[in-house]
Amino acid sequence: MNKTLMTDTTEEPRYELYYWPQIPGRGEFVRLVFEDAGAPYTDVARLPAEQGGGIPAMMAVMKGGSPGLVPLAPPFLKIGELVIAQTANICLFLARRFGMVPGDETRQAEAMQLQMTVADFVAEVHDTHHPVATGAYYEDQKPEAHKRAAQFLDTRMPKFLGYFERILAVQATRGPGRFVLGEAISCVDLSLFHIVAGLRYAFPNGFAAFASHAPHLIELHDRVADRPNIAAYLASERRLPFNQHGIFRHYPELDAD
Amino acid sequence: MNKTLMTDTTEEPRYELYYWPQIPGRGEFVRLVFEDAGAPYTDVARLPAEQGGGIPAMMAVMKGGSPGLVPLAPPFLKIGELVIAQTANICLFLARRFGMVPGDETRQAEAMQLQMTVADFVAEVHDTHHPVATGAYYEDQKPEAHKRAAQFLDTRMPKFLGYFERILAVQATRGPGRFVLGEAISCVDLSLFHIVAGLRYAFPNGFAAFASHAPHLIELHDRVADRPNIAAYLASERRLPFNQHGIFRHYPELDAD
Repeated sequence: MNKTLMTDTTEEPRYELYYWPQIPGRGEFVRLVFEDAGAPYTDVARLPAEQGGGIPAMMAVMKGGSPGLVPLAPPFLKIGELVIAQTANICLFLARRFGMVPGDETRQAEAMQLQMTVADFVAEVHDTHHPVATGAYYEDQKPEAHKRAAQFLDTRMPKFLGYFERILAVQATRGPGRFVLGEAISCVDLSLFHIVAGLRYAFPNGFAAFASHAPHLIELHDRVADRPNIAAYLASERRLPFNQHGIFRHYPELDAD
Repeated sequence: MNKTLMTDTTEEPRYELYYWPQIPGRGEFVRLVFEDAGAPYTDVARLPAEQGGGIPAMMAVMKGGSPGLVPLAPPFLKIGELVIAQTANICLFLARRFGMVPGDETRQAEAMQLQMTVADFVAEVHDTHHPVATGAYYEDQKPEAHKRAAQFLDTRMPKFLGYFERILAVQATRGPGRFVLGEAISCVDLSLFHIVAGLRYAFPNGFAAFASHAPHLIELHDRVADRPNIAAYLASERRLPFNQHGIFRHYPELDAD
């Protein structure tokens, strides 16, 4: 964060993240921005109720109990009276504050474009296990999920990851250790790290078969994982493990053989 | 557009929109911003090839034939060497230029949040006819589409449109003729107009059954349609009719009875 923009009397804002407490889910893309920046935040719904946490605290904001614009769904960020929702929107908002995206309008539009493409991809990952109804159980849509997951591994995953690989390959021609937007890390790189981790968990066979087509993406994943703040986060209890209730789920029957 | 920000020597930038020429699709959300603002733009792929148009001109940019960041998919906007993709990103970028969103960071984050929620909804509309594979024909996924469309009409459409209705209802308590973000129209209102028009085309029965739950949204649709620039656009050949190849498709078997 650019301290020179702050006056002596400006306090650090109190960042409150609201997301389902049991899953990495979409909240994880926001957590990674805070963690890499080393910025303090409160993961409200993971606090006990007696400390003002839990799912009821999250639901209270969604029911309009806060002065800001009501969010449709978590994750959302609360900074005093300001409430911001939509994962890509939160990531860019924080990345601007933490100096994690370039300052000019053009580069910010590019960062937003890539972060939205991440969001589109995440929605497609989710729909591999919920192709018919978000509100129903996976077990009630298994035949459809089987078809959609096969399409995902055959065409959608290569399309999206191939796109990011192509951008990283162009960056690699400009020098070593670069990120999707250039020399400095952005929220998009942190998201791509999590996507690689998530796909390895959800589709170990399908992703392994694809990985040789995305060497720059794999290298980026490893480089992000080694960043001191990220490594410390991954080793902490703040990093929730993948499980069968989030975006990235491991159902062996949906993976490639 | 705020002319006072321009110097005498600044020319209007040349805005080039690239999108599939035969469908309203996602490109329509961008067209509506240009049209309401009265800003000149070129709909490149709808020009004949001898004028530099057609799908090959669009594909050339997607293959990296332009200095800007390569887009994954249309629509994308080209302004000189700058290329911007992702519908919500383009809409907000233009809305800022045309003075169609408030200037401060908070309100812009709110506008982006709502525009991204529009994009999420549009993806769900699309998946009613393509629940298994975007790249396959509807006719090859009809049983799955039947299930997904029923879920859409029962739960997803009411969830999303109910959200916007709730925001508009709050605005209505503050005075007549207001829009989702306040007194001035934004790109989000233009998108909501198109969504109502599209749902009436795609799901005439399903939308009619829901419409009484969203009186403010219907009123907003009518008010946007009556704006002089929009009315002129709707009466022009620039407004492409809905058809069976875009986001909003009318398959009677997917509609409610």
